[in-house]
Amino acid sequence: MRHISAHDIEAIALGASVYGTGGGGDPYVGKLIARNLMQRHGDVALIDIDALADDALVVSVALVGAPAVAIEKFPSTQQMVNALGAMEKFLNRRATAVMCAEAGGINSTIPFAVASQTGLPLLDADLMGRAFPEIQMTLATLHGIAATPMALSDDKGNSVVMQTTTNLYTERFARSLANDMGGGACVALYPMTGAQARVATIPGSLSMLQRAGDVLLRARRDNDDPVARLIELIGGKPLFTGKVTDVQRVTAGGWTRGTASLSAFDDALGARCQVRFQNEFLLAEIDERAVATTPDLIALLDVETGEPVTTELLRYGLRVTLVVFPCDPQWRTPEGIALAGPRYFGYDADYLPMSLEERR
Amino acid sequence: MRHISAHDIEAIALGASVYGTGGGGDPYVGKLIARNLMQRHGDVALIDIDALADDALVVSVALVGAPAVAIEKFPSTQQMVNALGAMEKFLNRRATAVMCAEAGGINSTIPFAVASQTGLPLLDADLMGRAFPEIQMTLATLHGIAATPMALSDDKGNSVVMQTTTNLYTERFARSLANDMGGGACVALYPMTGAQARVATIPGSLSMLQRAGDVLLRARRDNDDPVARLIELIGGKPLFTGKVTDVQRVTAGGWTRGTASLSAFDDALGARCQVRFQNEFLLAEIDERAVATTPDLIALLDVETGEPVTTELLRYGLRVTLVVFPCDPQWRTPEGIALAGPRYFGYDADYLPMSLEERR
Repeated sequence: MRHISAHDIEAIALGASVYGTGGGGDPYVGKLIARNLMQRHGDVALIDIDALADDALVVSVALVGAPAVAIEKFPSTQQMVNALGAMEKFLNRRATAVMCAEAGGINSTIPFAVASQTGLPLLDADLMGRAFPEIQMTLATLHGIAATPMALSDDKGNSVVMQTTTNLYTERFARSLANDMGGGACVALYPMTGAQARVATIPGSLSMLQRAGDVLLRARRDNDDPVARLIELIGGKPLFTGKVTDVQRVTAGGWTRGTASLSAFDDALGARCQVRFQNEFLLAEIDERAVATTPDLIALLDVETGEPVTTELLRYGLRVTLVVFPCDPQWRTPEGIALAGPRYFGYDADYLPMSLEERR
Repeated sequence: MRHISAHDIEAIALGASVYGTGGGGDPYVGKLIARNLMQRHGDVALIDIDALADDALVVSVALVGAPAVAIEKFPSTQQMVNALGAMEKFLNRRATAVMCAEAGGINSTIPFAVASQTGLPLLDADLMGRAFPEIQMTLATLHGIAATPMALSDDKGNSVVMQTTTNLYTERFARSLANDMGGGACVALYPMTGAQARVATIPGSLSMLQRAGDVLLRARRDNDDPVARLIELIGGKPLFTGKVTDVQRVTAGGWTRGTASLSAFDDALGARCQVRFQNEFLLAEIDERAVATTPDLIALLDVETGEPVTTELLRYGLRVTLVVFPCDPQWRTPEGIALAGPRYFGYDADYLPMSLEERR
C-alpha cells in the first residue's frame, strides 16, 4: 500500500491519457476533479491486489457516456458517491475498496476522487489494462463475472440499479440511460470479491499509468524526446508521423465516432494514414492497409511534448506520432478478440497483433 | 370485497377496451393472459379502497411500451412477477395489494393475472380513470406521489429498479429501457400507502369497466343497440359516424402514433373526421375543427357491435361511431390539463371539455 497525493495525480492523468488511446474522456477534467477532492479530503491509499481478503467487496466506479459531454458537464462529487451508495444499498453491504474499470482516460482519475471522498482504499488494478468504449469489454466478462448489479446516477438526483443476464445487456441499457441522463452518468459496477479481482483484473495498472506519466514529464523537463522515452518504457512501436489533415467526428448514441486523416510531413512520400475511432482509436491504416488494430493500444502523441491526443480534441494541424502498444495477453485469445477485436466494431479487418519482438 | 372469476374477465376486458380509448394495448391479449392464469391459480379478491389500512403497501403493475409489440410478444407470468419482486426486494417489504395503473386496455387485465398468481388482492381503483400513454399522467402525480421506486423486467431475466426526482424522468428512462428490452417491459411502480391510495386513485374503476363490458355484451345478446346502451351507462356523446378511409401509423420511440381519417356514410354531406393518437386517441376533428380532446375520453366503437377499435388494429373500411366521454373532474383542473391536455402532446388545440349537460 502507498499513499497517492493530489500532487501525484498529474502524472497518473497523463499516463491515463496514453492508455486512454484517444478515448475514455479528457483526463484533464478527471485530473481537476480528483486533485480538487484530494486537496480537500486527503490522500488515497492505493492498495495491492494481494492485500484484499478473498471475500472483500470491490466495486468499480466510472463515468459512462460520450467523452465529449464531460468537457462541459463535469460530474459532481455527490453524483459519483450516489452511484456507489445505490450499489451498496442494493447489495446491503459496504464496499471494501473501489477500483478503476479502465486504465485510461478520465475513468482512471475519477475513482481517486471517490476514494478520497469516501475514505475507501483504491485498488492498484483495473478491468481492461487500457480503455475500451463498451461496458462488457473487460477481463471480468472473459472470466464470466457479471457487470451487475450496476448503479447509475445523474446530476439531477436520479438513480437506477440494474441486474442483467449478460454484460452486453448491461451495456445496452446503460448506454440508453446515460443518453437520457444528459449524455453521461456516474456508475458503480462489476462488484466482485477479492478472490475474483485476483483473476479478472490487471494488477499494478495504476502504478503503470503513473510511471508512463512520469517518464513523459521528466523527458519534457530534461528537453529529452518524450515519445521515445515512453516507447522505451512501455514497449511500443512508432508507425507514422505526420500532420492531422482532416477529422470526421459525430457524437451520437452515447459515443464519439469518426476518422482522423494524417499526412506525412514529407509530402513527396505521399503517405496517408487514417485512424478510426469509437471513443478510442481502434484501427489505423496506412495507404489503406491496416497497420494496427484493437485490442492493441493505438495512440496519437504530440511529436514535441508526447501529449496524447484524445478523439474529441483532434483537430486540423496537430503534429503527431502514431504509436501502437501491445495489449494484455488475455485480449489476444480468440475470446478476447471476439469481445473487443476490430470486427466487433464493424471494421472489415482481422486483429493484427503487434509483434512482441518488435517492442523497442 | 368480491371475487372475480376467470369468467368475469370477458366483460372487464371489453370495458377496458372502451376506457382504453384506442390505446393501452389490445385487451384481447390481456384477457387471454388473465383468464389462463385465473383458471390455474384461482379467483382474484377485488377489494375496496376503504378496506386498506393507512400503512398498507399498494403497488401498481403494468406493461410499458408500444401496444403493437404486445400483439406478437406476450409477456410471461414470470416476467410480471419479477417486476413486483424486484420492487419488493428494493423496498424490503411485501406488497399488501396490487393495483391497475390505468383503467383501460391491457393494463386493466394484466394485474388480475399478477393477483391470481401471487394470491394478493387487487384494488378496485386505478391511477387515471382511463388509459394514458405516459407514466407521469396519473392522479398520483397531481397529488405529488412519486412513480418510483419503479422496477422493470424483461423476457430475458433482466431487471432494473429506478429512483427518480420527477415522474417525467421516470417516463423518460422507462421508455428507453422498454425499447431496449425489445419494445415492451413489465413494470411495478407507484408504490403507495393505503392513505395515499385513498386520495390519488379513482375508486371503483374496475367495477365500472365490468359494468361497461356487461352492457355491451347484454345489448349484443338482446339484439339491442350496444353503442346507445353504453352511452346511456357512462354518459357520453356521439360525435360522428362513418367509415375509416385512411390510417397513418408509426410504431417508434416506444409509441404507436398516427392519425385515422373517417368519412361520413352519406358522402353528399362531405363531412370528414380525423382522429389523432399517441397510443390513445387524443384529438378528434370534424372538418378540421376540434370536437373532442384529451383528457376527455375519445373512443371509436364499431357501429354494429359496439366493439372499441384500438389504434393498432385500425384499418380501412371499419364502420365506427366516434364517442366522447367526460374524464374525471381532477383532469379538468389547470394542473390536470397541463399534465395530459392536447398541448402536452404537441397538438395546437386547447382542451375542449365535453359539457356535462350534454351527457345522454
